[in-house]
Amino acid sequence: MNYKMLARLNGYILLIEAVFMLPALFISIYDHENVAIGAFLATIALILATAGLLMLLSKGAKKGFYAREGLVCTGLAWIVMSLLGCLPFYFSREIPRYVDCFFEVVSGFTTTGASIVPDVEKLSRGILYWRSFTHWVGGMGVLVFLLAIVPSSGRGNGFTLHLLRAESPGPSVGKIVPKMRQTAMILYLIYIALTVLDIVFLLFGGMPLFESVCHAFGTAGTGGFGVKADSYASYSPYLQNVTTVFMLLFGVNFSCYYLILLKDFKSLFKDEELRLYLGIVVAAALLIAVNVRNMYPTLEETLRQSFFQVASIVTTTGYATTDFDLWPSFSKTIILALMVIGASAGSTGGGLKCARLMLLMKGLRRNIRTVLHPREVQVVRVNNRVVDEKILANTNAYLTAYIIIIMLSMLLVSLDGFTTETNFSAILCTFNNIGPGLGQVGPTCNFAEYSAFSKIVLSFDMLAGRLEIFPILALFSRTTWKKM
Amino acid sequence: MNYKMLARLNGYILLIEAVFMLPALFISIYDHENVAIGAFLATIALILATAGLLMLLSKGAKKGFYAREGLVCTGLAWIVMSLLGCLPFYFSREIPRYVDCFFEVVSGFTTTGASIVPDVEKLSRGILYWRSFTHWVGGMGVLVFLLAIVPSSGRGNGFTLHLLRAESPGPSVGKIVPKMRQTAMILYLIYIALTVLDIVFLLFGGMPLFESVCHAFGTAGTGGFGVKADSYASYSPYLQNVTTVFMLLFGVNFSCYYLILLKDFKSLFKDEELRLYLGIVVAAALLIAVNVRNMYPTLEETLRQSFFQVASIVTTTGYATTDFDLWPSFSKTIILALMVIGASAGSTGGGLKCARLMLLMKGLRRNIRTVLHPREVQVVRVNNRVVDEKILANTNAYLTAYIIIIMLSMLLVSLDGFTTETNFSAILCTFNNIGPGLGQVGPTCNFAEYSAFSKIVLSFDMLAGRLEIFPILALFSRTTWKKM
Repeated sequence: MNYKMLARLNGYILLIEAVFMLPALFISIYDHENVAIGAFLATIALILATAGLLMLLSKGAKKGFYAREGLVCTGLAWIVMSLLGCLPFYFSREIPRYVDCFFEVVSGFTTTGASIVPDVEKLSRGILYWRSFTHWVGGMGVLVFLLAIVPSSGRGNGFTLHLLRAESPGPSVGKIVPKMRQTAMILYLIYIALTVLDIVFLLFGGMPLFESVCHAFGTAGTGGFGVKADSYASYSPYLQNVTTVFMLLFGVNFSCYYLILLKDFKSLFKDEELRLYLGIVVAAALLIAVNVRNMYPTLEETLRQSFFQVASIVTTTGYATTDFDLWPSFSKTIILALMVIGASAGSTGGGLKCARLMLLMKGLRRNIRTVLHPREVQVVRVNNRVVDEKILANTNAYLTAYIIIIMLSMLLVSLDGFTTETNFSAILCTFNNIGPGLGQVGPTCNFAEYSAFSKIVLSFDMLAGRLEIFPILALFSRTTWKKM
Repeated sequence: MNYKMLARLNGYILLIEAVFMLPALFISIYDHENVAIGAFLATIALILATAGLLMLLSKGAKKGFYAREGLVCTGLAWIVMSLLGCLPFYFSREIPRYVDCFFEVVSGFTTTGASIVPDVEKLSRGILYWRSFTHWVGGMGVLVFLLAIVPSSGRGNGFTLHLLRAESPGPSVGKIVPKMRQTAMILYLIYIALTVLDIVFLLFGGMPLFESVCHAFGTAGTGGFGVKADSYASYSPYLQNVTTVFMLLFGVNFSCYYLILLKDFKSLFKDEELRLYLGIVVAAALLIAVNVRNMYPTLEETLRQSFFQVASIVTTTGYATTDFDLWPSFSKTIILALMVIGASAGSTGGGLKCARLMLLMKGLRRNIRTVLHPREVQVVRVNNRVVDEKILANTNAYLTAYIIIIMLSMLLVSLDGFTTETNFSAILCTFNNIGPGLGQVGPTCNFAEYSAFSKIVLSFDMLAGRLEIFPILALFSRTTWKKM
């Protein structure tokens, strides 16, 4: 294990975090929120001190950087970033307990959007901004950002590949262009452009600037932290529809946008994951609309409510315009299925991912054929290309890890004594990075009631979900720390 | 597809079913239950007529019999057997609606034990006997029985292999001895011996003969149909403990008993699945005992209750001595986990099976190692032998199918409007062949409230669970019916 390189990269990440905290500090200064100003200054000082220490420790780091370093670095960076990134909440006393602060910032970085804040409208604006911004940086990934800004000269492509792979969602990270650094840059440029576009559309609908920015961060990262107690319910139909569209856009595989930039519309329309993703959205929204048609006065409202909720859940954002916990069983079950499926690979959304669902189903179909006709050799194809067996094996292992983590988390969290439905939905919603769930953690409630122990378990689930399990599991594997 | 051979085998199966119905007829005659006598006679006549017709159709059947024939034959046989086997309930009017009769007999054959009978104590003894007997024959499998009694001369080992594979539970069917017919005979001899032993122990504890026989059938098949409204709650501690032990014995891989017959205790004690199975039982029962210690007056009763319920659920039997729906969340979550895990491969129990859980976890571990050290070649070993990659691929496909079936069933059943918890537990309990679940389908309630459509969905789940998915999926696959 290349410890010195780990220390150096974590140092870099903390530097970026400190810089990212500056706008929140400026907002607090602008608003004369003295307590928040102090909290941000103290946090930035602590982060810089830690970063400096890590840099000192990393002197003389060697180049060797392999898959396991990539996984461990990613897992550690996210934990360190959260341990320090939650301090503004704590120092400002706006969230009194440290474990709650940690839960809240992990929920932010992992773009979950599950909250322990009883009344979000009482938070100061600097704190609210930081809370929403964690979604934005977590959505595309802080290591990807690092790769995009730091010249990769002298480190080689393998270095960046392992980090990008470990942090980016999806069964196979598509290199958009051969060079990893350029891929990271293109991803961030698309991400920034879409975010700005979202802000413009929200401003156009009369949403104040601060709210527009915060909501665009929450939408772009598919996070779900808002600035109002009723999430999106009190906004105009126009603003709700804009957000529906943008949530869906951020749930698309970003390589699709690169295809648009290249004007390769043929590949775009043939993309199997995109078709599956859009098919699921439309089918789910229409089925729900039929099921809940008597709950809303007009067809327009019925469709708006069903599309908003479906977009919010499938992209794992978690905004709400209505309390879907009051919907009939059939609709709630569709919501539950969407929670598990999630958005596209290579998007900012969470969940199992449409690409994985597709690979799993194709793998199953292949297997049935093999059982029926043992002598024929069968391959799995996506977009007319044969899928590498390693990716299939990885996807299967992912499903196993997914189930085992859910079962173990259920067991640990059940010690708090809530109902099985509440626990199950709390875990689905944190692990799939959605946010609000059903029952006691439904769209109108939050996670504050859970014990400190459960909050740590749920924070672990959020991290495992966002980093797609392996970087977190790698931290606990003996093989990782074994000498080669 | 060798249709004539399918017809012939289904004819044989129906003949066996008619013979198996005779004891129930005799009990009805002995009890002077005229309606039941008529119902059994009419059913037997119908079954024999259908069998005769199938035999006529099968004239000139050719030998070609491959994996797909094995799968389709098994799937069809179980459906046909259920469609006709439920007629005594219907003709006797003891269960008025045909769909309920079908649900009840599928629940019997698949050793699920989920019931729609409002008051089981009102059923006549002939009907009760047939209901319990379906557990016994479904537990070890009717095709396995056929293989055991019919000489395989002139059909070759491949024929029996495909049927045994399709009907027997577990990721890899261990041939106990090289000849399949002998394997089937040995399995049934062990099965009969253990069942008789169970009856003797129950009689010794003062249980009447009829109840002993019915309960032994329910225990042997890990089914769970009883003859009393409160299941096992009113029996003596001795009878409860006897049943705990026998439920656990029938959840063991039967090849372990063959090792005992061979006096190969070394292999027995080293068997990884046996260790995992017993480890899970002891750990779960002790954790629950600690959790529910304040609910029962003595340590003896606490342990008796927790071990009985754990044995009942992990072996997917479904008898109950207490309403575990009233237990605290932690214990209920353990019960939920046991429902999914299930008993050992090669036992009469259902669920995912300990062997599959082991293969999945070892596969996951292998995958993490491969990610960390991409250049090392890793294999999965069980009992010090390398596991064939095909078995691992099959196990992964099984998990995918398992999840997809649960999600689709949830969606279909949710149309009835029950709570998500009730539906989820109803599906877990039918698909894993357990019987009673949590919530509205908990140990003290039953499935009668569901609509006819949901009962068909749940019957499908029971069949898919008992036959381990592929024989049922094969019926719906285009590849199956395609000309070679």
